[in-house]
Amino acid sequence: MKVMITGATGFVGRRLVAALANEGAQVSVLVRHPDSSLAIPLERQHPTGHGIEPLICALMEEQPDVVVHLATTFAGEHSPDQVPLLLESNVVFGTFLLEAMRASCCKRFVSTGTTWQHAEDGSYEPVNLYAATKQAFEDICFHYCLSEGFSALHLHLGDTYGEDDTRRKLLVLLEESVNAPKPLALSPGMQRISLLHIEDACRALRSSIDLVLDFPHGTIQVRGVSGDATPTIRELVELFNTVDPTLPARVEWGGRPYRNREPLVPRSAGVRLEGHVNTISLEDGLRRFRARASQTKHHWPQEVT
Amino acid sequence: MKVMITGATGFVGRRLVAALANEGAQVSVLVRHPDSSLAIPLERQHPTGHGIEPLICALMEEQPDVVVHLATTFAGEHSPDQVPLLLESNVVFGTFLLEAMRASCCKRFVSTGTTWQHAEDGSYEPVNLYAATKQAFEDICFHYCLSEGFSALHLHLGDTYGEDDTRRKLLVLLEESVNAPKPLALSPGMQRISLLHIEDACRALRSSIDLVLDFPHGTIQVRGVSGDATPTIRELVELFNTVDPTLPARVEWGGRPYRNREPLVPRSAGVRLEGHVNTISLEDGLRRFRARASQTKHHWPQEVT
Repeated sequence: MKVMITGATGFVGRRLVAALANEGAQVSVLVRHPDSSLAIPLERQHPTGHGIEPLICALMEEQPDVVVHLATTFAGEHSPDQVPLLLESNVVFGTFLLEAMRASCCKRFVSTGTTWQHAEDGSYEPVNLYAATKQAFEDICFHYCLSEGFSALHLHLGDTYGEDDTRRKLLVLLEESVNAPKPLALSPGMQRISLLHIEDACRALRSSIDLVLDFPHGTIQVRGVSGDATPTIRELVELFNTVDPTLPARVEWGGRPYRNREPLVPRSAGVRLEGHVNTISLEDGLRRFRARASQTKHHWPQEVT
Repeated sequence: MKVMITGATGFVGRRLVAALANEGAQVSVLVRHPDSSLAIPLERQHPTGHGIEPLICALMEEQPDVVVHLATTFAGEHSPDQVPLLLESNVVFGTFLLEAMRASCCKRFVSTGTTWQHAEDGSYEPVNLYAATKQAFEDICFHYCLSEGFSALHLHLGDTYGEDDTRRKLLVLLEESVNAPKPLALSPGMQRISLLHIEDACRALRSSIDLVLDFPHGTIQVRGVSGDATPTIRELVELFNTVDPTLPARVEWGGRPYRNREPLVPRSAGVRLEGHVNTISLEDGLRRFRARASQTKHHWPQEVT
């Protein structure tokens, strides 16, 4: 199987590349800058360059069976100066990729969206501009399915976490707070969240690839996967401390307000991906996360000692 | 009333600007290049420039009650080299405009989409990439309504026509064919179309402005207007010849194939704009078009004599 991946240097991408390479798939990647530290031979790393042409060249050379598009730019609450990059990454680049696929007759496509695109009933109701750009891209992709016979599966993922996550999200901040001089300022913490372990996210993507390879031409599916547990942030921190009671996180509850339009219950993942079952419980996932964190702490860029 | 308009130099824009100026509204425009031949004082013409900043400056200076966004790039069937401009015009520029409105606290917005965004039942099913980019922009606008309290009305217009239309669409080509050495090659011509006279399109936009000025914060509406008659192309050409029998169009039926995915019946306009009634019958509209064409023929760029 030949798979081309964008966003291969991201948290999900690195894992998926490793999993696919492990099972003997021929993996190529589209990257901004080829990088010899990636687990992909340099000749399978293709620079994205500018516009559609370099993408066509890469696709023509690799002739992948399926393209998995993970490259994205995230902003929880955006500032005006982030708008050009959000559009460029989440709408324009993806459309260039679809257009290059059209030119090179590669028509099977998997991409990731977010549960933040949905209201609780599953209809479109974006939490933020990031989620809106994801929806905008899917509506453009719909054209390629209808008019060009593409088959596409958009996998909407809940909030992901896992060992080796270097994004400065809640769990990393909690780990840092253990030895910090001041406690971590958090919202009142009554909002419920759902965390999806990276291993379960990767397994869902792996199934999505198999599904899309079997789709009839012109099929488009939107499917979702999120974590099973839905603790409040307070309960999550409690569990975080339970799995390693010797190193408790230090939190100032109410030290910052809730974000504008922060969902107080997890958004729906929509129609669940067929056959997918999560395998890592939140407790096990947190245990793995904390164990790895204690091994690698000294690598974190902003550690306070 | 203060109205800021994009796309003021286009077929619909020119008419709307004239209609608004006529009733005493203060009209300002965002244009690529200020132009003294426009019926707008130069100090009310603001260059779009690059990025969001110039748009914020223009909005801060004008403080419009409502922004009417008509600027667009059209492609019936796109080629790869048109993709960057389709995205830039139809998604990126519009989002920059919304972001600039957010920064300048102007939150009432009217924009135009196309009936080509809809299946016959009104659901989303784009005819082409152009229609998909329009939908993508509306997805993004939805975020500004939900999170920032914008009020927006997206008016989906059917195919427009009218006197002084210089776009090289069917009616202009038919007029040119009258004196051309070779007949105009058309498809077999059994597809039905619906033509909306520019005067009716402008009246619908004018009503949309009034509606959006009265919307509660956070309202989003998608409404449609299209022509009432749905002749086949063959019937349209017959009517075209009937209104001026001395100068019949010369057509070679079947001289070119139907376009890929060309709709054989007009797409639904979705939920019709409240209170809107078309006033120009197709026959009257064609009569006006042909009368004006016979006066101004010598201005056409590619006339064959």
